[in-house]
Amino acid sequence: MPKISSKGQHMPASPIRKLTPFADKAKQAGKKVYHLNIGQPDIETPEGMLNAIKNVDFDVWAYTPSEGTLSYRTKLTEYYNKLGYNIAPQDIIVTVGGSEAITIAMMACLDPGDEVIIPEPFYANYNGFACESDIVVKPILSYIDNGFALPPISEFEKLITDKTKAIIICNPNNPTGYLYSKDELNALKELAIKYDLYIFSDEAYREFCYDGREFISPMHMDGIDDNVIVMDTVSKRYSACGARLGCMITKNKAVIAAGLKFAQARLSPGMVEQIAGEAAVDTPDSYFEKVNVEYTKRRDILVSALNKMDGVFCPNPGGAFYVVAKFPIDNADKFCQWMLESFEHNNQTVMMAPATGFYSTPGAGSNEVRMAYVLNATDLENAMECLEQALKVYPGRV
Amino acid sequence: MPKISSKGQHMPASPIRKLTPFADKAKQAGKKVYHLNIGQPDIETPEGMLNAIKNVDFDVWAYTPSEGTLSYRTKLTEYYNKLGYNIAPQDIIVTVGGSEAITIAMMACLDPGDEVIIPEPFYANYNGFACESDIVVKPILSYIDNGFALPPISEFEKLITDKTKAIIICNPNNPTGYLYSKDELNALKELAIKYDLYIFSDEAYREFCYDGREFISPMHMDGIDDNVIVMDTVSKRYSACGARLGCMITKNKAVIAAGLKFAQARLSPGMVEQIAGEAAVDTPDSYFEKVNVEYTKRRDILVSALNKMDGVFCPNPGGAFYVVAKFPIDNADKFCQWMLESFEHNNQTVMMAPATGFYSTPGAGSNEVRMAYVLNATDLENAMECLEQALKVYPGRV
Ligand SMILES: Cc1ncc(COP(=O)(O)O)c(C=O)c1O
Ligand SMILES: Cc1ncc(COP(=O)(O)O)c(C=O)c1O
Repeated sequence: MPKISSKGQHMPASPIRKLTPFADKAKQAGKKVYHLNIGQPDIETPEGMLNAIKNVDFDVWAYTPSEGTLSYRTKLTEYYNKLGYNIAPQDIIVTVGGSEAITIAMMACLDPGDEVIIPEPFYANYNGFACESDIVVKPILSYIDNGFALPPISEFEKLITDKTKAIIICNPNNPTGYLYSKDELNALKELAIKYDLYIFSDEAYREFCYDGREFISPMHMDGIDDNVIVMDTVSKRYSACGARLGCMITKNKAVIAAGLKFAQARLSPGMVEQIAGEAAVDTPDSYFEKVNVEYTKRRDILVSALNKMDGVFCPNPGGAFYVVAKFPIDNADKFCQWMLESFEHNNQTVMMAPATGFYSTPGAGSNEVRMAYVLNATDLENAMECLEQALKVYPGRV
Repeated sequence: MPKISSKGQHMPASPIRKLTPFADKAKQAGKKVYHLNIGQPDIETPEGMLNAIKNVDFDVWAYTPSEGTLSYRTKLTEYYNKLGYNIAPQDIIVTVGGSEAITIAMMACLDPGDEVIIPEPFYANYNGFACESDIVVKPILSYIDNGFALPPISEFEKLITDKTKAIIICNPNNPTGYLYSKDELNALKELAIKYDLYIFSDEAYREFCYDGREFISPMHMDGIDDNVIVMDTVSKRYSACGARLGCMITKNKAVIAAGLKFAQARLSPGMVEQIAGEAAVDTPDSYFEKVNVEYTKRRDILVSALNKMDGVFCPNPGGAFYVVAKFPIDNADKFCQWMLESFEHNNQTVMMAPATGFYSTPGAGSNEVRMAYVLNATDLENAMECLEQALKVYPGRV
């Protein structure tokens, strides 16, 4: 029997699905499980986007150009230029989700053995994508005590070698919800110029900024056109995760040319999705305002409930729809599993993602948990009540 | 300005798109260009599949499980088990096109530096996928004179090293249209057992077998369950290239487990596509019969027209919708470019793919051209008339 690759052996499994078998058992045992572990929003997809699917009108479901249709890329510039990105259709490669934008950017810019610096905790699949391309992730710790702000630039500089090619920032951040400030982004800009680095800007949660705070992208900054690569997706913006539609944006023509060759190898992004994506750009502002109000409410419920619990600390995040909270527990992996296996409150329990899966420094985050506030207010309140009871009786409480 | 990766530099550009700028110029100059260069069929997508899109009914366009919905995978087993594959839903990972099935299979089974043997000419993007994962392609020449039959097993054995992990066969073949016989597949089976190799079976053109000939898959063979990985797609079967829907199939549980980790990293295949793919399985036989009649007619037009031309040889392929023909020319790249740049017959010309792009042995195929018979009979006849005239006046005729 032929052996699988060592890459296949070492490829990390998804940390947010690790506990799924325990959740399944809990459900089989009749417990209600509140899923705060995954980033699948319950928000409805805009009507215009759904109607675009229903109204498709073609006889042959054909390939589109590998870089995406000109029509969709042109429409996208309308969206991005309203944000002040000042881009043209040829600065965009349409991708299969934000996920593919990340893999194409990595392959176009980094070789096996090259290094990418990422503030941790970070989106766990960066580890997987790096493993696929034999790229080395250099994590740099951020801390819950200051809400996971950008680590000091001096810490980045300590990690820079001649193998360092890029920095990834995810803004607003998954898993922490942290929204980077203009000063922080300026500091990253200076660093990128000084060491000739790419800034990979993962902006999957751009639309989710709270308390009137402004979203700033490296795309807004002068003098780093050739350094910045945006990795974007419609997944969260329009609650259209199943569309598998994203894009890579850069004004760096060499990166676009290289990226296009990777895009050509896989032939085409989805055709129906691009039609729907084009319609999505016309989603009225009122949709986003409503969503923003809803998420703000949920965040407030979650954060205030958490901080009221004895021994719990949760920073108040400026964006995205996640929080990372610190619990008075021995071990987050054990705790989250125990919640599913051994705990119930009114026959209910909560599934959460241990934060350890979002760190690559061993041991880091072992008393932290990530929660996605993708449930309605009532469910969230019930989940928080469950959690509060659980923390009172958890045998590994410290 | 940061540099792109050397992977990005060396990634091969798509050979079938290389001449696109010349085709564009020809069109701007008012010439009609017959596109025989690409595998985008003009056949209509089955109505049931298109209706499934139009009738989608959900509020949230959500992620599906990374391995695909159980519902779609179950329906797929119906299709595959009718073919005699004898598989269960858990033997399938739903992928974003056949393209992703190839990349996942490669990553799950081969490490950087590992070798895969492929009879050439072969589907050019195998080179690109191998480049992405730093896998080494070992080509093994097949010859136009015997219709591109499987090279003798002794030739394979000469190439086998301790780095050899897999053989790719594409059956029926793109670009040659060759349909492998049971004897050939049996010989490959013995080879796979003897050297403990994977057989990657790319079956994108399974439905396109002519003259009543039978399609045989390594999935039909006993004793190699752990060796065989099928890479499949709905692109050609249902003329649904823009759906980006495929799958990887294997009874090797370790490969499924490894493959699933790569699938999890990119989260999900498309949701609407899986709904449409499920409907597609119920496409009536009459659809395929009609398509088969149409392609047989086209093949016959093309092959007989080609073989009537002075100095041209074209084997009569048993499957797919491509032919590779030998022309009395100095250089296929030059010839194909000249056809677009400098030739016209009644203000018409033909775009073809030089076969060189499908070989990885330097110099091989330099007087061969690939044509896809994806145009209707009348257009094909006109294209052949053009080509005949062109070959008469081409300055590089030998
Ligand atoms: C930070 C971040 N980046 C990228 C992605 C990829 O999303 P998709 O491939 O659905 O666009 C996600 C999904 O959760 C994410 O959280
Ligand atoms: C031999 C072969 N394999 C795989 C593919 C990939 O097709 P897709 O990604 O559209 O499923 C193609 C497309 O032309 C092909 O010809």
